[in-house]
Amino acid sequence: MRRILAVVVLISICGVAAAPDSLSDMPRYASDNSLLRPDGYREWIYLSSGLGMNYSANPGDHEMFTNVFVPRWAYKEFLESGKWPDKTMFVVEERGSESRGSINKRGKYQTDSMGIGVEVKDEKRFPERWAYFGFSEERKSAQAHPKEGCWECHENHAAVEHTFVQFYPTLKPVAQKFGTYRQERAKVQ
Amino acid sequence: MRRILAVVVLISICGVAAAPDSLSDMPRYASDNSLLRPDGYREWIYLSSGLGMNYSANPGDHEMFTNVFVPRWAYKEFLESGKWPDKTMFVVEERGSESRGSINKRGKYQTDSMGIGVEVKDEKRFPERWAYFGFSEERKSAQAHPKEGCWECHENHAAVEHTFVQFYPTLKPVAQKFGTYRQERAKVQ
Repeated sequence: MRRILAVVVLISICGVAAAPDSLSDMPRYASDNSLLRPDGYREWIYLSSGLGMNYSANPGDHEMFTNVFVPRWAYKEFLESGKWPDKTMFVVEERGSESRGSINKRGKYQTDSMGIGVEVKDEKRFPERWAYFGFSEERKSAQAHPKEGCWECHENHAAVEHTFVQFYPTLKPVAQKFGTYRQERAKVQ
Repeated sequence: MRRILAVVVLISICGVAAAPDSLSDMPRYASDNSLLRPDGYREWIYLSSGLGMNYSANPGDHEMFTNVFVPRWAYKEFLESGKWPDKTMFVVEERGSESRGSINKRGKYQTDSMGIGVEVKDEKRFPERWAYFGFSEERKSAQAHPKEGCWECHENHAAVEHTFVQFYPTLKPVAQKFGTYRQERAKVQ
């Protein structure tokens, strides 16, 4: 009996180590179906950053950095399959940029967060499988954006499922290896 | 006896879960005292990025992104103390930047890695406690840079010990809380 108990305790602990690091590594929803802000994303796996990336030719008013993160458990599954498991979340964090500070004289470094965008793959909950949400710094929950917008752009232009792996240099060879990378979507459009 | 054995096994496994994720999360050296390349750094904690950051007023020839990573175990200790534990490593990764690709029309996104710089705190091994190394993409080990250069600049300008926390917006409030942040080093110099 003691041995069985010890094995059970052992398996529980091992289970915790292999599972998502915390509850916020999986999408969580309020009773009104809004997504709760995934607070722990800065401890997820970093994919890449941009500065002032813009899909329209019109100039923006302020150049922001965008940092992209994905939970460790989903990243590990992607490395082994080139596919995103159900319940994958992406966070794109927007940060201000500055040039002159401390000893820096040229180029840009990151400052305060201006909010985050969250992409969720939740096949049972969303008829279109992927959904998109925006959070200002203060916002704790958000309703999904309408389909026209983020969803449509990801549907039509993302290289791997709904994700812009063409902009994530460490994931690109993984998707190419597994044949999930749509090469034509990396070409200038 | 069985109970003791079970407890020992349990402690060993818990120990593994709390320890560095892999050997490459701690500095490792070759017999000639050169540092081995820390291969797993892309799964460390991301601190921030810059684009074309430059400490001299002279223009550089190509704007590169710089991404900074620190091992999870060292980051966790910093969150609880505002100090870097012995054996902390920092990696700054340099990546090329592109503007026109796929649907992107403005700003910059990241491309291939151009190499990494590594900063190590190893109090017993280095008389100056911190040491600095450079790795091209192919390089597997590197000797420490001479003191004049990285070490001197970090010694004279970094806000927390030898680290430029003035450029890591999520760590700045942590260091301020623990009183380890040198505010005067964040001012324009």
